[in-house]
Amino acid sequence: MEIRKDVNQPRPTGDLKVFALGGLYEVGKNMYILEYKEEILIIDSGILFPEDDLYGIDYIIPDYSYLIQNQHKIRGLFITHGHEDHIGGIPYLLKQVKIPRIFANGFTASLIRKKLEDYPNLKAQIYEFHELERLKFTNFIVSFFRVSHSIPDAFGMCITTPYGDVVTTGDFKIDLTPTGKDADYQKICSMGQKGVLLLLSDSTNAKVKEISTSEKFVADNIKDLFREIKGRIIVATFASNVSRLNQLIESSIENNRKILVTGRSMESVVQIGRDIGYIKAKEENFIDEKTLGDYPNNEITILSTGSQGEPLAALSRIAQGQHKLIKIEKGDTVIFSSSAIPGNAPEIDNVINLLSKQGAEVIVQSSFNDVHASGHASSFEEKLIIKLLRPKYFMPVHGEYYMLKTHAKSAIDCGIGPKNIFILENGTVLVINENGAKVLSQKVPAKAILIDGMDIGGINTAVINERKVLSQTGMLTIIVSLNNNGKTLVRPTIISKGFLFAKDNEDVFTNIEIFTIEYFNNYPISINDNLEEAKEKFKADIGLYIRDICKQNPSIFVIINRTDIEKADLVPGKASPTIDEI
Amino acid sequence: MEIRKDVNQPRPTGDLKVFALGGLYEVGKNMYILEYKEEILIIDSGILFPEDDLYGIDYIIPDYSYLIQNQHKIRGLFITHGHEDHIGGIPYLLKQVKIPRIFANGFTASLIRKKLEDYPNLKAQIYEFHELERLKFTNFIVSFFRVSHSIPDAFGMCITTPYGDVVTTGDFKIDLTPTGKDADYQKICSMGQKGVLLLLSDSTNAKVKEISTSEKFVADNIKDLFREIKGRIIVATFASNVSRLNQLIESSIENNRKILVTGRSMESVVQIGRDIGYIKAKEENFIDEKTLGDYPNNEITILSTGSQGEPLAALSRIAQGQHKLIKIEKGDTVIFSSSAIPGNAPEIDNVINLLSKQGAEVIVQSSFNDVHASGHASSFEEKLIIKLLRPKYFMPVHGEYYMLKTHAKSAIDCGIGPKNIFILENGTVLVINENGAKVLSQKVPAKAILIDGMDIGGINTAVINERKVLSQTGMLTIIVSLNNNGKTLVRPTIISKGFLFAKDNEDVFTNIEIFTIEYFNNYPISINDNLEEAKEKFKADIGLYIRDICKQNPSIFVIINRTDIEKADLVPGKASPTIDEI
Repeated sequence: MEIRKDVNQPRPTGDLKVFALGGLYEVGKNMYILEYKEEILIIDSGILFPEDDLYGIDYIIPDYSYLIQNQHKIRGLFITHGHEDHIGGIPYLLKQVKIPRIFANGFTASLIRKKLEDYPNLKAQIYEFHELERLKFTNFIVSFFRVSHSIPDAFGMCITTPYGDVVTTGDFKIDLTPTGKDADYQKICSMGQKGVLLLLSDSTNAKVKEISTSEKFVADNIKDLFREIKGRIIVATFASNVSRLNQLIESSIENNRKILVTGRSMESVVQIGRDIGYIKAKEENFIDEKTLGDYPNNEITILSTGSQGEPLAALSRIAQGQHKLIKIEKGDTVIFSSSAIPGNAPEIDNVINLLSKQGAEVIVQSSFNDVHASGHASSFEEKLIIKLLRPKYFMPVHGEYYMLKTHAKSAIDCGIGPKNIFILENGTVLVINENGAKVLSQKVPAKAILIDGMDIGGINTAVINERKVLSQTGMLTIIVSLNNNGKTLVRPTIISKGFLFAKDNEDVFTNIEIFTIEYFNNYPISINDNLEEAKEKFKADIGLYIRDICKQNPSIFVIINRTDIEKADLVPGKASPTIDEI
Repeated sequence: MEIRKDVNQPRPTGDLKVFALGGLYEVGKNMYILEYKEEILIIDSGILFPEDDLYGIDYIIPDYSYLIQNQHKIRGLFITHGHEDHIGGIPYLLKQVKIPRIFANGFTASLIRKKLEDYPNLKAQIYEFHELERLKFTNFIVSFFRVSHSIPDAFGMCITTPYGDVVTTGDFKIDLTPTGKDADYQKICSMGQKGVLLLLSDSTNAKVKEISTSEKFVADNIKDLFREIKGRIIVATFASNVSRLNQLIESSIENNRKILVTGRSMESVVQIGRDIGYIKAKEENFIDEKTLGDYPNNEITILSTGSQGEPLAALSRIAQGQHKLIKIEKGDTVIFSSSAIPGNAPEIDNVINLLSKQGAEVIVQSSFNDVHASGHASSFEEKLIIKLLRPKYFMPVHGEYYMLKTHAKSAIDCGIGPKNIFILENGTVLVINENGAKVLSQKVPAKAILIDGMDIGGINTAVINERKVLSQTGMLTIIVSLNNNGKTLVRPTIISKGFLFAKDNEDVFTNIEIFTIEYFNNYPISINDNLEEAKEKFKADIGLYIRDICKQNPSIFVIINRTDIEKADLVPGKASPTIDEI
């Protein structure tokens, strides 16, 4: 690797900065930044799905504040492929940052356009690059190389900088017999021969020793299964895996089956796939739910969303018997042509159990039935890319810490010097200049921004902290109505959420009620007292009392109303029906 | 792929011929020929080990008659690496064919020189090529690319011909973390980018799905084992795997063990390895058998031949308690850092049993202890080479028919047109010219030549047929001494080999003896009789008699001596001690 020394080029000055706003120490919200002088290139704009459904967080996105501050430098957003962890953040980014152009190819561009239909106020200029195109900027030249992944039109990128070529693989696997377009191994070889300054490479399956299964192998197994299965076939798979969908559709047609597509994302992808020619089947091969009954079961394939056991997806509704038209019948075979995303196994098991109970044969990915293949390179494939590209510097990306670490070890085994390998955190800046490469002590802001539904501004961290406390302690709201004398007017209303279960703890709630009534009868709040202070005092006291009687620390909310309504029956007794448990 | 169109070159005329004299439909006796006009290049000159030890055949070599006839065209013999199936035939070839030069690199050249020491009358000019060298001939340019294999200095070759580049991989695997020198992936990429006319590729492990294990992985496991093992360590491995030997030696030194090398081929390879610097250990790290007793067991490693259970190898002698100085003791660990060559399993099991019975812990290659790795590419690696080289034509080599067939299928999966793939037999000629590629109907002679010991001329097929009959029927030799009257003078001598077991069949042998005595007493041979005719008659008669009494058809040899010695005791009785069974 030599630093670029074009005769007509002045010697480069200044720092090339490379960093991630997302994608490091995590699988998700990928966003990598290249900056040189007055130019910033952004690679990918993904979301992260939270591992738990806690606190009502739907997505997590990167902190865009660095991009907001340096908006004038941004030349474009380059999207390597159309998975949500690479495109899901686009609406949130566009809302906050002016992006002159989004560069994307084929299927990816279609998915982005489809996504932005939900945000009519966001303006985006999408530039569909050709895979052989070279895009020239003042300090950068960007080119692309097709890779194999579990979605069509996935690309790696080569960014020629004043100090040499920075290559990012995007998400990739080495599939030597793909069912879609082939990866561009010649371009990979060429880059290696020219010399690579820095390689950013996908670390997802760094711990996996076996080579990734080829889509052709899965396709062959699916073909075999379709020949054998006599009844109706229902297949759940990842909607974005168009090659897989195409295999399922082709196998259906070969076996004289019509195809019903159910689930919004699946319908949308099949439509896009047909529009751009990746799914060749004709209109007559598809049926809709209304005409489903016109065909015998052995002439039907249903392609469905819900491979992750998502409760609202088509397959879950079918499993629960809640689908309008599709009911499981004995003789049905359900194929999960998918793998379980970590954390989803219980939901998937639940759906499988429901389907089995109703008489369906369920086939999941196993060594007996290879009906799914990962889209990510295993250790051997990662090493191969390192050997072919021979980068001077190496930065494992797209993975949890242990994945990055393992990938770094592979790089060392392949001959990259440990000092030339950078396992960075989001926000940590790698600087390359004529003195070499080093990590800056100053980080750029790169905290996780939590998104609740369509709120594209991000949730305040305090809100999440509150939800976190609530999730751990539960909540007890005590509404006290006081008369003019500052004593309790009616029985207090006690609302419990996530605290003790009411039916099993009637005495606790009765005691809380009695304590409250007696408290205000003994310490009435006069008209001149500071209500807030009195409330805080009561909150502290009843908190201690509750801890005493049941060893719990719920979040306590106290609402005090003053009123002149006549005193009602205040004899404590059976727990009030207003006590509620959800 | 474009046919070469150098401006200054005339348009090529004539046929490029490519064929094998050995290596197809077999794993062994590799010899591939390229011929254009008045030039022949020979690639490799191997032997094949017969699968059984039947008929006393030590090796099988190719039929060199085509080379003898076309001797004037031969420009050289190129050796890809130093395994016996690539160099073992050299003495036999040199004896029959004038080879102007043998081109070999490093360790391979050393092994060839060592081998030829046993044949002082053979003159060979060995040219040690540099791995970056380009050798120019009238019609060919030959260059090399280093590959990973289970022996150092293994190379593939690129032969530029008037119609394009012919590439042969030699034996190879893709080892991204080898312990020796790295393969030249950049050269492989370059060849692919320039365009390959025809690829000949190693098919040995075409049926293997899992990627080949890296030597580094084996080395790490060996290191771990050496740290754990407390007693003496005895390792049997393939002598030619110098990287492995080096790992074993380095692990020994790290753990304060001296190394004893035992077995002729192992001693020879360790010496060559040290001479050319592939084994770095110093003289002081090695001990000989005489000083073995000076060290405690936990400071000794013994590197031994005999990983295949060969009865005369050091390890077998140790196992049988027949080794002069090395006796198995409780606490010894024997590691087979090797795999069983097909057919050798029973012998290896026998040695393992013997070692275990004497208290040794025996470790063999398994998923628990990865102490060996194949030197050949699995299916994925074969496909990768095809993808990187993108040949126009493909010819799987180095393998049994099913291996070639499977490799061809992989090539089809990788996009090579089935009509451009040639599964040939030894002697079948592929012709490439400006009209494309086709197979000639006329074959060149390519029968298997069987070699018995040092007889480098080849054995007559009739001899083998005789051995075959003997192996199936056994042999009965009857020596009859007749007096002047043509009657038996003394009791006939009966020698049985591979016929009935004497001790269990005394009556049969007694009956044969009586029949013989009575036969000649009843039909004495007069001095005027034709002895040969009489002998044949007796042979036929006693053959029928033996078939009658015991349903056997041994090969019968009759020797008749006429003598005047006095008649001895002729009373038939106990079987004579001259009846012998081996």
